[in-house]
Amino acid sequence: MPIIEMHMLEGRTSEQKRRVAAAVTQAVVESLDCSPETVRILITEHAKDGFFVAGLTQAQRVNGQRSASLEEQNP
Amino acid sequence: MPIIEMHMLEGRTSEQKRRVAAAVTQAVVESLDCSPETVRILITEHAKDGFFVAGLTQAQRVNGQRSASLEEQNP
Amino acid sequence: MPIIEMHMLEGRTSEQKRRVAAAVTQAVVESLDCSPETVRILITEHAKDGFFVAGLTQAQRVNGQRSASLEEQNP
Amino acid sequence: MPIIEMHMLEGRTSEQKRRVAAAVTQAVVESLDCSPETVRILITEHAKDGFFVAGLTQAQRVNGQRSASLEEQNP
Amino acid sequence: MPIIEMHMLEGRTSEQKRRVAAAVTQAVVESLDCSPETVRILITEHAKDGFFVAGLTQAQRVNGQRSASLEEQNP
Amino acid sequence: MPIIEMHMLEGRTSEQKRRVAAAVTQAVVESLDCSPETVRILITEHAKDGFFVAGLTQAQRVNGQRSASLEEQNP
Repeated sequence: MPIIEMHMLEGRTSEQKRRVAAAVTQAVVESLDCSPETVRILITEHAKDGFFVAGLTQAQRVNGQRSASLEEQNP
Repeated sequence: MPIIEMHMLEGRTSEQKRRVAAAVTQAVVESLDCSPETVRILITEHAKDGFFVAGLTQAQRVNGQRSASLEEQNP
Repeated sequence: MPIIEMHMLEGRTSEQKRRVAAAVTQAVVESLDCSPETVRILITEHAKDGFFVAGLTQAQRVNGQRSASLEEQNP
Repeated sequence: MPIIEMHMLEGRTSEQKRRVAAAVTQAVVESLDCSPETVRILITEHAKDGFFVAGLTQAQRVNGQRSASLEEQNP
Repeated sequence: MPIIEMHMLEGRTSEQKRRVAAAVTQAVVESLDCSPETVRILITEHAKDGFFVAGLTQAQRVNGQRSASLEEQNP
Repeated sequence: MPIIEMHMLEGRTSEQKRRVAAAVTQAVVESLDCSPETVRILITEHAKDGFFVAGLTQAQRVNGQRSASLEEQNP
């Protein structure tokens, strides 16, 4: 251990995944004073229609905010 | 929190995912009396050959039941 | 399936857990049109010092907001 | 229960998944003395660029070892 | 990999956990032809009031079945 | 997102958990160029008898190595 599962939206490049995994491993090794060999990272990717905040996808939330601000501009 | 991971078989439409996420968020908000903004839902989809009950896939179980019932009809 | 893992902060009563599990099961059954027997819910509870938003625990965030508002009142 | 989530690298055949799920179910049933019907297995597959040990993907580690051994042979 | 998370109800002894982990590791090694050193098992235990099938805890289901059978005996 | 679940052995202090969560959040924000507010970290702690490598607990592995080295010293 530690074993770290990172849930992310689909769409990041392999290079971005490598960069975040290396940075997170470094952060864990330094802050927990453990060996890099004990740190495993799993990236689980979720489709854009598979992640919800307050019951809405990111797209629904952005559209909701856009129509709300349009309404403010022309009530 | 709460952060909710829903494991499902692949194959549901975006509309079905939106509907279940909205319904589950509502159920959590009402029963735990928490704000919608604190509720995150992750859908993790599994291939049909990646989910097992009693060591069998859904297809194996259906075939097993079908051949069992055939045997009963013509022992 | 679906198999649902709900991550929550420790501290909820058994009654609250029963209520949210029943409500979420009902929401899933109705929105995915599946049988209740296929819906399993696991509650994983996290200690208050084991959940972070923006790198801070809930307590740290509340204290941070309190001292920020104190500063506004007497700059 | 038990509900078992197996994280694996992508690339295994359906037959390999069936074999490991049947073997693991059998191992659980025998060692925990529980009924097969209570054992559910979820396989979550990770892309090769989504699993890291010591901050490196399997490919990076193999390349790292290969160049290290080349250096030993011709320092 | 594989990294295996086993969700179980609280209450099993350390000996039972050792036995199931050894048996599952053996099953994975043999069926996936991988080295034991690559197999990690995490046991996540859930309180009895934190696992639900069809929205009911195990205790609720047992009580429900008991009162149903009592009703059958003296309708 | 990202939502990060960190599996660790029980026994770390609240201070250690705060430190690793802050460091990991920083690493994710910098490497993925996302806002801290989108980063959630869940720490799931496992009992020492609930984590296995090659089918053995940490204690079993340490004892195994100790008796192996004793055997080497006095074959």
